[in-house]
Amino acid sequence: MTVEKKRWFQIAFQLKGSVISAIYKRVIVCGLFGVLVSILYYFNLSVSQPILGSVIPSIVLGLLLVFRTNTAYERFWEGRKCWGAIVNTVRNLARQIWVSIDEISAEDREGKIATLHLLVAFAVATKLHLRGELVTDELEGLIPNSKYRKLKNMNNPPLEVAFWIGDYLQRQYNHNCLNSYQLTAMQELLNNLVDNLGACERILKTPIPLAYAIHLKQLLLLYCCLLPFQVVESLGWWTGLIVALISFTLFGIEAIGLEIENPFGYDANDLPLDAICNTMKRNIDDLISLSPSVELYN
Amino acid sequence: MTVEKKRWFQIAFQLKGSVISAIYKRVIVCGLFGVLVSILYYFNLSVSQPILGSVIPSIVLGLLLVFRTNTAYERFWEGRKCWGAIVNTVRNLARQIWVSIDEISAEDREGKIATLHLLVAFAVATKLHLRGELVTDELEGLIPNSKYRKLKNMNNPPLEVAFWIGDYLQRQYNHNCLNSYQLTAMQELLNNLVDNLGACERILKTPIPLAYAIHLKQLLLLYCCLLPFQVVESLGWWTGLIVALISFTLFGIEAIGLEIENPFGYDANDLPLDAICNTMKRNIDDLISLSPSVELYN
Amino acid sequence: MTVEKKRWFQIAFQLKGSVISAIYKRVIVCGLFGVLVSILYYFNLSVSQPILGSVIPSIVLGLLLVFRTNTAYERFWEGRKCWGAIVNTVRNLARQIWVSIDEISAEDREGKIATLHLLVAFAVATKLHLRGELVTDELEGLIPNSKYRKLKNMNNPPLEVAFWIGDYLQRQYNHNCLNSYQLTAMQELLNNLVDNLGACERILKTPIPLAYAIHLKQLLLLYCCLLPFQVVESLGWWTGLIVALISFTLFGIEAIGLEIENPFGYDANDLPLDAICNTMKRNIDDLISLSPSVELYN
Amino acid sequence: MTVEKKRWFQIAFQLKGSVISAIYKRVIVCGLFGVLVSILYYFNLSVSQPILGSVIPSIVLGLLLVFRTNTAYERFWEGRKCWGAIVNTVRNLARQIWVSIDEISAEDREGKIATLHLLVAFAVATKLHLRGELVTDELEGLIPNSKYRKLKNMNNPPLEVAFWIGDYLQRQYNHNCLNSYQLTAMQELLNNLVDNLGACERILKTPIPLAYAIHLKQLLLLYCCLLPFQVVESLGWWTGLIVALISFTLFGIEAIGLEIENPFGYDANDLPLDAICNTMKRNIDDLISLSPSVELYN
Amino acid sequence: MTVEKKRWFQIAFQLKGSVISAIYKRVIVCGLFGVLVSILYYFNLSVSQPILGSVIPSIVLGLLLVFRTNTAYERFWEGRKCWGAIVNTVRNLARQIWVSIDEISAEDREGKIATLHLLVAFAVATKLHLRGELVTDELEGLIPNSKYRKLKNMNNPPLEVAFWIGDYLQRQYNHNCLNSYQLTAMQELLNNLVDNLGACERILKTPIPLAYAIHLKQLLLLYCCLLPFQVVESLGWWTGLIVALISFTLFGIEAIGLEIENPFGYDANDLPLDAICNTMKRNIDDLISLSPSVELYN
Repeated sequence: MTVEKKRWFQIAFQLKGSVISAIYKRVIVCGLFGVLVSILYYFNLSVSQPILGSVIPSIVLGLLLVFRTNTAYERFWEGRKCWGAIVNTVRNLARQIWVSIDEISAEDREGKIATLHLLVAFAVATKLHLRGELVTDELEGLIPNSKYRKLKNMNNPPLEVAFWIGDYLQRQYNHNCLNSYQLTAMQELLNNLVDNLGACERILKTPIPLAYAIHLKQLLLLYCCLLPFQVVESLGWWTGLIVALISFTLFGIEAIGLEIENPFGYDANDLPLDAICNTMKRNIDDLISLSPSVELYN
Repeated sequence: MTVEKKRWFQIAFQLKGSVISAIYKRVIVCGLFGVLVSILYYFNLSVSQPILGSVIPSIVLGLLLVFRTNTAYERFWEGRKCWGAIVNTVRNLARQIWVSIDEISAEDREGKIATLHLLVAFAVATKLHLRGELVTDELEGLIPNSKYRKLKNMNNPPLEVAFWIGDYLQRQYNHNCLNSYQLTAMQELLNNLVDNLGACERILKTPIPLAYAIHLKQLLLLYCCLLPFQVVESLGWWTGLIVALISFTLFGIEAIGLEIENPFGYDANDLPLDAICNTMKRNIDDLISLSPSVELYN
Repeated sequence: MTVEKKRWFQIAFQLKGSVISAIYKRVIVCGLFGVLVSILYYFNLSVSQPILGSVIPSIVLGLLLVFRTNTAYERFWEGRKCWGAIVNTVRNLARQIWVSIDEISAEDREGKIATLHLLVAFAVATKLHLRGELVTDELEGLIPNSKYRKLKNMNNPPLEVAFWIGDYLQRQYNHNCLNSYQLTAMQELLNNLVDNLGACERILKTPIPLAYAIHLKQLLLLYCCLLPFQVVESLGWWTGLIVALISFTLFGIEAIGLEIENPFGYDANDLPLDAICNTMKRNIDDLISLSPSVELYN
Repeated sequence: MTVEKKRWFQIAFQLKGSVISAIYKRVIVCGLFGVLVSILYYFNLSVSQPILGSVIPSIVLGLLLVFRTNTAYERFWEGRKCWGAIVNTVRNLARQIWVSIDEISAEDREGKIATLHLLVAFAVATKLHLRGELVTDELEGLIPNSKYRKLKNMNNPPLEVAFWIGDYLQRQYNHNCLNSYQLTAMQELLNNLVDNLGACERILKTPIPLAYAIHLKQLLLLYCCLLPFQVVESLGWWTGLIVALISFTLFGIEAIGLEIENPFGYDANDLPLDAICNTMKRNIDDLISLSPSVELYN
Repeated sequence: MTVEKKRWFQIAFQLKGSVISAIYKRVIVCGLFGVLVSILYYFNLSVSQPILGSVIPSIVLGLLLVFRTNTAYERFWEGRKCWGAIVNTVRNLARQIWVSIDEISAEDREGKIATLHLLVAFAVATKLHLRGELVTDELEGLIPNSKYRKLKNMNNPPLEVAFWIGDYLQRQYNHNCLNSYQLTAMQELLNNLVDNLGACERILKTPIPLAYAIHLKQLLLLYCCLLPFQVVESLGWWTGLIVALISFTLFGIEAIGLEIENPFGYDANDLPLDAICNTMKRNIDDLISLSPSVELYN
């Protein structure tokens, strides 16, 4: 129990993954403004206006913040679901390729293994594409050289990888290593991969509508600027500290929303895409180590 | 970090995309009404009624505004999902047409390329249809002339484009360039395109139920009209400004809902349909640059 | 902008579509009760009890009202989705029938046209069934006379229309005008139509659980009855008016929920089912004007 | 309108379907406790502690109650959807069996009718299974005697009914009365039935997590026990009544959640499963009265 | 009714399944801190600062707690849905294997029974995998020895079980005991099993984003630390107790979220995975006791 409790406090004060670094400047500005107001109050300027508290009904602000939080989290979770679906589909497609495609000549098994690697390459290419990175050597080990070179000139590399997988399946069908029902079922899984690629792009490219982002920022600013006038009478010299704490609370929620909204990056709050890709690779390697009872060449 | 923070403030004061231009008149009217009340108060008329604050429980108003916000955002996001699905389906259908349809005679490849262009034309026609625009020359480069002329007389142009794609697929099946399973799978993707067209029309044509729109507007008006009587005692001549700020807050949320609700237009908060259509076109062009290993004529 | 703003106020004061006519009696009763309480107060009876405001925490009432609003709106929107799905499925099924069924003899085209009209008849029959109306002459133009007479004796007319469409498809398959994959795909679309009919019936027949409806009404009554005692001290003779306004706010939200919950009727807040059916009919007519390249009789 | 309004009040005071009978004891206990506190107060014990109102922030309590309400309602609605899906799937499967299975010998039609009755039996068996009832004579008219006896010894009767339907379909396929595509499509509908049975079992067997149920009850108790100390100063002898009313409000919401959570029982707030089963039976009977144009024996 | 009511109170005071054991230390710390503040107050230090109550708007805290609760519950419910889907799919796949695979030689029935057991083994292996446990003898009775040994070296045992099932189906297809449509349909059910395995892994491995967890803990700490200063003036020596109660309320909600988030463990709030697996086993045994009318060897 001590361990558990210690961890609770550890997490509460952890800096990595928290949004403090993103908002501390704004918080300090608000605090200094609070100090300024308490100085003015000290010199008897009539800056105390408790009624200002009703300018922005705290329920409106609170609900808008929650709306921000919910939509950002939904994107995060939808992004996670897409990657989960990519993992599942790669596993299913790999299993079906491994189990169902007949091996007539000796090279057929190698073709199957190359295609299983292409499946992992699809996931890796999607990861790089979502991060806006170029095609790197992370992909080089997974796809043949000729294809690797072609990929470098494409707008949307994962789409071309999907094309090659589709082309491989069609060729196996033409060589009678695959019947047409299985071809159709596998094409559907491939469609599924492309659908999830598209869904990730959608999350990446469509942030929350600008009008909400602007309106929320305006309300937050207004709220934090009016705050010192409300509380200076009762808090005196504590005004600065308290205003800073409140603005920390509110800016923090907004900043998390901003950070979570695009979950495909590198920081502590993003999805562990590298780990997911590695798991996929490991599952494929495990699969290759089992031998299916397909029709063998002889 | 300075860059980031600067951007935060820049966004907060950005005019483009904000709803200020849509609501400033109403805000000014409310402000002037507030000034009027403070003048009456100055002449000792008994206009101060703090209890009026409880007429519209702020929780009810706040929750209604959030309801408005949520439903509007859901439409926006559903519209985005529909367009994402159109992109994905066009990519998948294009890949399958390119990979799976056999090329028996020399003209077959041209037929395939024309059909890939028809897929883009479907998206463009959907865009124009949702915007209530006529068939323009944006479509002219994507479809043959004879079809372009026919399209001009139709009630729902994208439906006819879907008909032509379906007809092309059926013809390929009749010429044995396509087996029946793949035909069925492709028809399903085509159905998917039409489903998403219908979903966009649904979003466009079904705003929030009238009764909610009316009731919310009535509550907002009532709230803003009663506000000066509540606060005039404590705020004096500041009443006008503060009432204007509050009404800005509330009308702003309602106005964003109104603007987001139909996301298929041209302004800064709408979906970037032109960019989406261009991406689609670019993906198709990339695909055409790769050659599939289909059965070739000889 | 003037136009826009004018419309905003127009909508706010619009009577058609608002719920005023549904609740004005209850509002007047509450107002009169408020007047009564202020008369008692005038004669120095100790009716003022501000603490009563805490009997029903406004947050509980507010959240219950929002729960009511959300569930009612979800039904409305689900109903709209079902009708959108009916439109889409009719379009897709019509296109596939038109494109894929071979025409061996001269009468085959007439059979196809009759079936396309049956599809529209399905939608119209669903509309009438949901509105609890008898089979009227609106259907007569869309289905053959013999079937029209049979339909009059059925419990659930749309189901029989679906049976006839399914029977037609099976007959075409037996005559080799349709292969079995396409038959299956079309049967699935037909299943989809019946699913959406069932979903509409579900929305129609399952209102919000009675216990919620009762509890919410009880809380509303309690709240409105205790209100005058709370506010009479500060408002004096204004009590009646203010109580009426508050009860208008609250009863209004409940009444909208009640009205939206069943969206298949005729009033201004219901779905435009007649317009939807007409659009469907127009799309089918457009389709018939295009000629498919099916195998023709000769 | 008078009718409508009268009904509004009638519903508000209706006892059947309300939760009063479930909570009145707890409400009375709370009321008596309030009276006790006011007696203590009368004898000048310092029991008045208005600050206690902040112990449980009413927003926290309110939001927890709403969470309870939402999750319970979602189960109710999901249960309703499952039954709607059972209705739809039974209709679709019945129509396809009736239309698509060829009748080679004279007994084939009887086999079809027996299977249509098995479909209704599936729904009835599901209803009984969810209610924890034994196999009764309600089922006896729908299934052959031999099967009825076997059913009595099974853990999960609907599953066996599904097995018999699947077995019938497979037999028709083996006798060439059904092609393999249609068999697969029908098996999928059968899977759908079993999926919905499983979904109902899931709703039945997984209540809200215990920790929530406990925590909510503890907060409610704490809130109601501290309430009299808060209000006794201002309300005096009214304390008992008011505390009773408040506890009625809160316990009521919790009790509805409890009642709605399992919607498969017999009381006024549960789903009308008997009526749904009867509708299904009537639809099947209507279907049997129409004759399909299948290949007839001769 | 007495029984029911007794149960209500029993549940309210039940220790098993409640989160008291997880949070009592933090609650005591908060209580002691409250006592400390009241001692300081007793010695006339100016520690009373009622305005501090506004530092963390209770609406913001409340809404964040609800957000936490909702997301945790959604994971719990999604996990339950995944297991429900596994149950349904195992039932459907078992029924189809039992009904549809022809038995040519005497060993074929044994092969079918072994495969039905493999289906249960898939569920059990998933359970163990989610709990991070090694392959135990719970699996030994369900799979052949050779496979059991192989399974011990795999990263993801359920995936290998799925491979064996897929391989069995493919072999039956190669031996003509199964047609290709049914093979495809069964492969889809198998894909479904793997999808649900992946969904459970996703729930397990992706907790709520770290930034939210940290921010919520910080707000809770801040709130509980500032609380005694707010209330000490009015509560005096009661401060400690009341602060402890409030912190119990709030920490409790957070702790439940933490506990529910991963529902695959062993404690009272987790899913009854062992019971679910046993139900599945019983359903399979019931199925084996019925004999299908497949083509028998002779």
